[in-house]
Amino acid sequence: MSKLNDKFARLGVDSAPGQEGRQQAVDLDLRGAKLEGIPVDFSHGDIDAFKPLPASLESFVSGFHEGAQQAYTEYRGRGSIRNALAEKLAAFSGAPIDADTEIILTPGTQGALFLAMGANIGRGDKVAIVEPDYFANRKLVEFFDGELVPIQMDYLAPETGSGLDLTALEESFRAGVKLFLFSNPNNPSGVIYARDEVIAIAMLAQKYGVNVIVDELYSRQIFDGREFTHLRGLDMVNPENLLTIIGPSKTESLSGFRLGVAYGSARMIDRMEKLQAIVSLRAAGYCQAVFANWFSEPGGWMMQRVASHQAIRDDIHALFSAADGFQVRLPEGGSYLFPLMPEIDLDILEFTKVLRLQAAVSVTPGIEFGPQFTGSFRINFSQDHEAAVAAIRRTIKIVNRYRV
Amino acid sequence: MSKLNDKFARLGVDSAPGQEGRQQAVDLDLRGAKLEGIPVDFSHGDIDAFKPLPASLESFVSGFHEGAQQAYTEYRGRGSIRNALAEKLAAFSGAPIDADTEIILTPGTQGALFLAMGANIGRGDKVAIVEPDYFANRKLVEFFDGELVPIQMDYLAPETGSGLDLTALEESFRAGVKLFLFSNPNNPSGVIYARDEVIAIAMLAQKYGVNVIVDELYSRQIFDGREFTHLRGLDMVNPENLLTIIGPSKTESLSGFRLGVAYGSARMIDRMEKLQAIVSLRAAGYCQAVFANWFSEPGGWMMQRVASHQAIRDDIHALFSAADGFQVRLPEGGSYLFPLMPEIDLDILEFTKVLRLQAAVSVTPGIEFGPQFTGSFRINFSQDHEAAVAAIRRTIKIVNRYRV
Repeated sequence: MSKLNDKFARLGVDSAPGQEGRQQAVDLDLRGAKLEGIPVDFSHGDIDAFKPLPASLESFVSGFHEGAQQAYTEYRGRGSIRNALAEKLAAFSGAPIDADTEIILTPGTQGALFLAMGANIGRGDKVAIVEPDYFANRKLVEFFDGELVPIQMDYLAPETGSGLDLTALEESFRAGVKLFLFSNPNNPSGVIYARDEVIAIAMLAQKYGVNVIVDELYSRQIFDGREFTHLRGLDMVNPENLLTIIGPSKTESLSGFRLGVAYGSARMIDRMEKLQAIVSLRAAGYCQAVFANWFSEPGGWMMQRVASHQAIRDDIHALFSAADGFQVRLPEGGSYLFPLMPEIDLDILEFTKVLRLQAAVSVTPGIEFGPQFTGSFRINFSQDHEAAVAAIRRTIKIVNRYRV
Repeated sequence: MSKLNDKFARLGVDSAPGQEGRQQAVDLDLRGAKLEGIPVDFSHGDIDAFKPLPASLESFVSGFHEGAQQAYTEYRGRGSIRNALAEKLAAFSGAPIDADTEIILTPGTQGALFLAMGANIGRGDKVAIVEPDYFANRKLVEFFDGELVPIQMDYLAPETGSGLDLTALEESFRAGVKLFLFSNPNNPSGVIYARDEVIAIAMLAQKYGVNVIVDELYSRQIFDGREFTHLRGLDMVNPENLLTIIGPSKTESLSGFRLGVAYGSARMIDRMEKLQAIVSLRAAGYCQAVFANWFSEPGGWMMQRVASHQAIRDDIHALFSAADGFQVRLPEGGSYLFPLMPEIDLDILEFTKVLRLQAAVSVTPGIEFGPQFTGSFRINFSQDHEAAVAAIRRTIKIVNRYRV
């Protein structure tokens, strides 16, 4: 069992978003008085500040009343819902989707990611992931006994594009990487990959026959009217080698229903359904009914939601930019911001604990996104605007108390 | 990738309950005219015939309106709900439960089973399962690269008890089995393990230090006032080596919410939460609110529900008993019945297809429960009473058309 022990020892969750309540108390170097203010949990979005998509509850209730047909769907999700989503997502991503074979409904995008990784990673397979990127990515590679090949993204440096090291990416493909997984917009930095970069990724994937999973969870929340390039819309990668993941948990605030979607490669989706059959059978049947409201928002609703987030982003980014010693990139999409702090007297886990105790602010430590991000933290700024701004002011004050 | 291919080739779902729509058309030997009647899908319970627990939708709606607190729970489930359930399940199973460390809420009991197996099975570990037993059990062992050790249950033979081969079970434990998984009541046979058998299992598990997972999904639906013995209630196995699984999807008809629970070993549950964090984060937050109604049913509701199922069981069992050449055991609990047919001219997969085409009746082929059950099928008799009885009459007629 010792290999299994090791595996689970690496699968820590105590620093993961939402799990702070389970942390053990430790001796902390607390300096100065507590900073008063409305508590803000930046580890995930606040759906009380940004409410779920209108009429989502009504769709759920209708699904419930429909009864057995909605409760017991195929493992890949109810056919009529897949039909509707296939059409909407094809229009959104710029390439057709066969509703029968090329789309699966999952319990959240986390569910889609787990199934997709399980469908692709054999023992010892090399898997390239970006650093920084969503914290579960590396855990999934490890869980499925893949070999992690990190590719650096110098997100603080470039004027445009992500700063992904494309040379290192090609080198990894040449060295036998089977699967490349990346999020676009990037979690945690808010970077959008430039069209040229997405094209380069497509060419490399096609040249080396690498499977690609793109996590586009935040691709509907793009700021400043920027261009967003869907890898599948380029039509440069063999469609059977490409899977796209998206869901309504973030911008649309439907996380409480646990809904996600994966679309693309029929081969991968076939495996994902087999896996889903033993993992949790299906996304909760009644919840699936809520997909009806997605990509069918009331006129102007999405635009307003993106604008509200952009306004919070601007204020928070301005605070970090003005604060001495911080480095931060302006997020181009999504609700995340990933500042690099000036040097302080605390390690990053101590810092997040001190911040919560002294300022009632929760953030996610940078090391969740790659072991080298010891001086960074992630915030999800989908929060009450004023409370978030005040909380960032407190955060900067706490950092200043510990500067070297 | 060839090992991964093999793994997914073994994970077939086309014959699994609810997946019939995805089967390919094949040439079938169709004899005689179609038998008219109301279609019945015995592959799972009909929640339109047996409606969800009263007020479950209302609890969901309240949870939705509660907002962020209910949407974003700890991965192991919301604390207040765990507190309430720990108390109810401790009373039910006869042993205390620490709500903080010894219980986890999951997406369905399938979710609990997946997490529990993942938490326990290392590569090459020997895992004992019963034959026949729930079809996902063997798939889970294979998925986690365990070594399957089947233990036979001669469910057609005994007057009392399950007919489990306890000698073979001890032999397997002596030969190094790390984990034993069994369902009680047994799926698909409806057998309840006798108290003596549960005690024997407890003694063997304790003697050899084997971990045990008991799937008690149907343990609230016991017929004829029989005694049901909870393994954990015996207090004979080290509590850290024992996990019990249950959920409200069956008797209570809440499958559309995807809710399950595992309770017992804190060590296993700790791992299960880590795994849940990368599998699907949590049981859908709003759905968790529906747990409030469970084990708090209106007076007489459960008794009435069990009585209704017992009445259907009696009628269907009588039909099979009277039919020439069938062997069937009277189910003591749960909604399943697992008849052995007389010899026919079709293999079991052909038979299930013919039955669906000629009689509008869906059943689950016996080979899902063990490769040797080539002449059996499972029915879930949680159906409209009259329609179910008529469908069994048609089923017997179809069998007779193909008798050797």
